[in-house]
Amino acid sequence: MKRIAFTLVAVVAVAGIAALTACASGRADGEASLGIKLPPGYRDWRLISVAHEAGSLNDLRAVLGNDAAIETYRKETLPFPDGTIIARLAWSYVPSEENNKAFGREQSFVAGAPTNVQLMVKDSKKYAATGGWGFAQFKGGKPADEAALKGCFSCHEPAKANDFVFTHYAH
Amino acid sequence: MKRIAFTLVAVVAVAGIAALTACASGRADGEASLGIKLPPGYRDWRLISVAHEAGSLNDLRAVLGNDAAIETYRKETLPFPDGTIIARLAWSYVPSEENNKAFGREQSFVAGAPTNVQLMVKDSKKYAATGGWGFAQFKGGKPADEAALKGCFSCHEPAKANDFVFTHYAH
Repeated sequence: MKRIAFTLVAVVAVAGIAALTACASGRADGEASLGIKLPPGYRDWRLISVAHEAGSLNDLRAVLGNDAAIETYRKETLPFPDGTIIARLAWSYVPSEENNKAFGREQSFVAGAPTNVQLMVKDSKKYAATGGWGFAQFKGGKPADEAALKGCFSCHEPAKANDFVFTHYAH
Repeated sequence: MKRIAFTLVAVVAVAGIAALTACASGRADGEASLGIKLPPGYRDWRLISVAHEAGSLNDLRAVLGNDAAIETYRKETLPFPDGTIIARLAWSYVPSEENNKAFGREQSFVAGAPTNVQLMVKDSKKYAATGGWGFAQFKGGKPADEAALKGCFSCHEPAKANDFVFTHYAH
């Protein structure tokens, strides 16, 4: 029982960035970003929404959430409870020649190679100084260093009314 | 028991388009598109990939799959088995002023209002004439009429080597 409880705590302790900077696909390989690990099974989580960042990021992204995240979005009961994890996956933005041929015009852009995965993990005590959120970033399963995460919270501050989360649920 | 079996068959009989034409968000409200209904809980399915269609479609899309779809993608064991359902959700492609402010530049596009939902349902006997796939489309939960679905299979034919499915799994 203790072992089970410890595992659950370890999973919940996984944190992250759903920040708006650059970030890689995710294997839950056990390395931590500022104490936060990629949660096992995050690729199976339910979809919150999708986005395209143009410019230098030039990616397509999907934002997934664990059960606490999805339930909070659907019930519209902010703030997100402790244990919430939001995962932002991103892939390079590439034209699909195969799709364009089928459409008969150049219009289709699909997910290419993974760029990075960013996480936001809610723990109102542990991360009290940053709105209750821990931020992390992983590229090819490898965690980003501390310097890369410095801007996460300040970037998310304008979204304070939405508990520091930019992504809205796609109905 | 018979009632349970019937319900399962009805769910599996839900079919669709992951076609490349225009399509709406999904409520599983019970109306059928060519005999195919929106499967309950499809919004909770796991993510296959994401895409952006520019031009007149001008949408962001997520392709979700039921368990059979996801397992087949991950194991790379084409063809998809009977019972597979692939759901293509799409939303209008809208700039996010909120995100652009945080980035300090105009680069962010997010999911706006839902446009439509397209389904592909595998039943190799029932849909033998169309590669084993049934196609359907729903807008605001309402099924498209037959005329709107005529082009589905011919459009998907070029993807025959991938069992008529265009979307590749986003790792």
